[in-house]
Amino acid sequence: MTSFDAVELIRVKRDGGTLSDDQIDWGMAAYTDGTMADEQMSALCMAILLRGMSSDEVSRWTGAMIESGERMDLSAVGRPTADKHSTGGVGDKITLPLAPLVAACGAAVPQLSGRGLGHTGGTLDKLESIPGWRAALSRTEFMTQLREVGAVVCAAGDELAPADKKLYALRDVTGTVEAIPLIASSIMSKKIAEGVSALVLDVKVGSGAFMKEADSARELASVMVELGEAYGVTTVALLTAMDQPLGHTAGNALEVAESVDVLAGGGPPDIIELTVTLAREMLAAVGLTDIDPADALRDGRAMDVWRKMIAAQGGDPDAKLPRAREMHVVRAPASGVLQRLDAMAVGVAAWRLGAGRARKEDPVSAGAGVLLHAKVGDPVTEGAPLLELHADSGDRFDRALAALEGSYEIGSAPARTQPLILDRIGG
Amino acid sequence: MTSFDAVELIRVKRDGGTLSDDQIDWGMAAYTDGTMADEQMSALCMAILLRGMSSDEVSRWTGAMIESGERMDLSAVGRPTADKHSTGGVGDKITLPLAPLVAACGAAVPQLSGRGLGHTGGTLDKLESIPGWRAALSRTEFMTQLREVGAVVCAAGDELAPADKKLYALRDVTGTVEAIPLIASSIMSKKIAEGVSALVLDVKVGSGAFMKEADSARELASVMVELGEAYGVTTVALLTAMDQPLGHTAGNALEVAESVDVLAGGGPPDIIELTVTLAREMLAAVGLTDIDPADALRDGRAMDVWRKMIAAQGGDPDAKLPRAREMHVVRAPASGVLQRLDAMAVGVAAWRLGAGRARKEDPVSAGAGVLLHAKVGDPVTEGAPLLELHADSGDRFDRALAALEGSYEIGSAPARTQPLILDRIGG
Repeated sequence: MTSFDAVELIRVKRDGGTLSDDQIDWGMAAYTDGTMADEQMSALCMAILLRGMSSDEVSRWTGAMIESGERMDLSAVGRPTADKHSTGGVGDKITLPLAPLVAACGAAVPQLSGRGLGHTGGTLDKLESIPGWRAALSRTEFMTQLREVGAVVCAAGDELAPADKKLYALRDVTGTVEAIPLIASSIMSKKIAEGVSALVLDVKVGSGAFMKEADSARELASVMVELGEAYGVTTVALLTAMDQPLGHTAGNALEVAESVDVLAGGGPPDIIELTVTLAREMLAAVGLTDIDPADALRDGRAMDVWRKMIAAQGGDPDAKLPRAREMHVVRAPASGVLQRLDAMAVGVAAWRLGAGRARKEDPVSAGAGVLLHAKVGDPVTEGAPLLELHADSGDRFDRALAALEGSYEIGSAPARTQPLILDRIGG
Repeated sequence: MTSFDAVELIRVKRDGGTLSDDQIDWGMAAYTDGTMADEQMSALCMAILLRGMSSDEVSRWTGAMIESGERMDLSAVGRPTADKHSTGGVGDKITLPLAPLVAACGAAVPQLSGRGLGHTGGTLDKLESIPGWRAALSRTEFMTQLREVGAVVCAAGDELAPADKKLYALRDVTGTVEAIPLIASSIMSKKIAEGVSALVLDVKVGSGAFMKEADSARELASVMVELGEAYGVTTVALLTAMDQPLGHTAGNALEVAESVDVLAGGGPPDIIELTVTLAREMLAAVGLTDIDPADALRDGRAMDVWRKMIAAQGGDPDAKLPRAREMHVVRAPASGVLQRLDAMAVGVAAWRLGAGRARKEDPVSAGAGVLLHAKVGDPVTEGAPLLELHADSGDRFDRALAALEGSYEIGSAPARTQPLILDRIGG
């Protein structure tokens, strides 16, 4: 490999130039093996954040991150593989009903997930509230479950895009997270390395999302779709609303319970709509259009896969889910229609109640979280419960209530609601 | 002190905002004590480079660097103190005749210097070619010499602006050297901490200088003058030409010999002009206008101080200076007038001959360098010596000659020459 100097690369981006393929390959390898120091990579990331990257640069950068590890081969699974990635929202438990639903319709869903950090929960944290369920699988267990059950949600190992892992930790402490080329390459390097043939991206927009504006969300979605296609993965992105939480719950066991409701044919309409829409996209992307996922959700086939999927990882699908020890009810201060319920505020409240973690070493509470008695557009009655706060210790309520201050609005007019699915990119 | 988070500071600059005084104070202290990591400071420096700093921010940043160490008190010296700083040029030996000249005229010159890195030589490296001379002085030796001789050129200790030392080393490896606010604060924090009452800045412009364009040199000069005045140091800046080398030599012992010629009343006109002009500025800045430095140079008073200054630091002013073992003569390829002689090329050639160092641990050769037989505007004769290359080993000539390729031009018309002193800022 041609050898370069780290300062040379930094200067190119700093001065608005374009990195060559060789420079990107060298830089990523040098950063992974320590030749390029953290302080050099953080300066480069800041230059990328402020100067941008060309489409070719992002593509090569992503490729170099994939090359830092292994790209999995899922051909032995024996059916088409599809995955979904959400950029993160409050109450976003969609993976839980979605993975078994898509598996029930004939595709295999290998979902390598992470844990939650900050105001959005992590899929693994949610599933770990099921007694006995474990996130860590060996490669053999993973492949066997994928072949036999069709759906696996488990922890990502260190073999996939290790450069991204190192880089993400660096960006997190150097103010260089918010760069579209770096976000897109981070997400896509892991998903491409996962080896799926199709990927559906759920890019959240709104107060509770990383992207507050539709324009930047659309840009991120386009870059990711382009990256997927460049590396042979059929990729589609949906832009979906994240101004209020998804469903009626934010918290680990609370969200599992709501997901099970959906798999049992009930549950909130927004969760059903998003789950079925994403399932249709995933199935269409791998050419499976003969089964309607709405039927498979209604008739219990998805629930059957869910039970197998949980049991295969040691979980008891019939076990009683943990509940928090303390509860505090927030009552509606007036009668009328709920006009607004800020997703970010609910996410922060759930986090402060114990559902999320501030540092990656922290434990989470299985039972903690927020339960919504109304969503935007619903009628509310003065004095009736509006929100329930759940926590293992009553001293957490004050800070959660502080986060919720000013987060909802009750009015007399009908609420202005927006569609859940805002846009579709790619395909 | 108010406590902040490093990422918070980085985000402010990244997004084009202004750091508060408290944020700057906290950041510099946190970086000095390690609370703020190298990878965070380098990201901040890149954001500063690309977003700029307001005048208030640069001033506080400089103040915070001064506060990281000691500000010297020179009141015990008993005479007004003045210093000069050059941003670095090829053949720039001006400190050598200037310090004793200004001392001979009544001011005290405490020059805390550095070593050379890259194509410009270091004042300490030059003086160390004098047998016996030593750069390291104790604080007591420094003060005694300043009081008794009036001029000291020695190595800066770690007590002055230690934050700058750490920051400069970081900027050097992270592509963040070329930011005017960071350059200006780095230079001025050290000079202000030195405790002088007046400072004259020699800001070089041209091919052999750090600043290639007059506009950026003027901007740097203005920021530095403003900083000096903000911290109570009378500060003036001259913009001077650095398209061809200063004088006829680039190299350590070669430049000492040329400086001694100037102190003996001879030497090249450009060295005399710049030395006398800078001396007048330094003396005027401390109110000493009764002695003309041109006289003190001509009548040997400056030479007397030089001899005392060298002897006080263990050097023998009468010792024979080291000479390089090998010499290679470059002859004029045509007769005519020398139109151009590129300072950068000569600087790089001298460096490659052994006069400079690539890493700060490297030794330098005392005798190596380039001697010019003609300057721009001088007549040259085909076959007559144009340049002499001096090195301790003959195998260095090839790479030095490669650096000189295309660096000079001989024509029949009179050369277009520019004045040495281009502009004056402040005062």
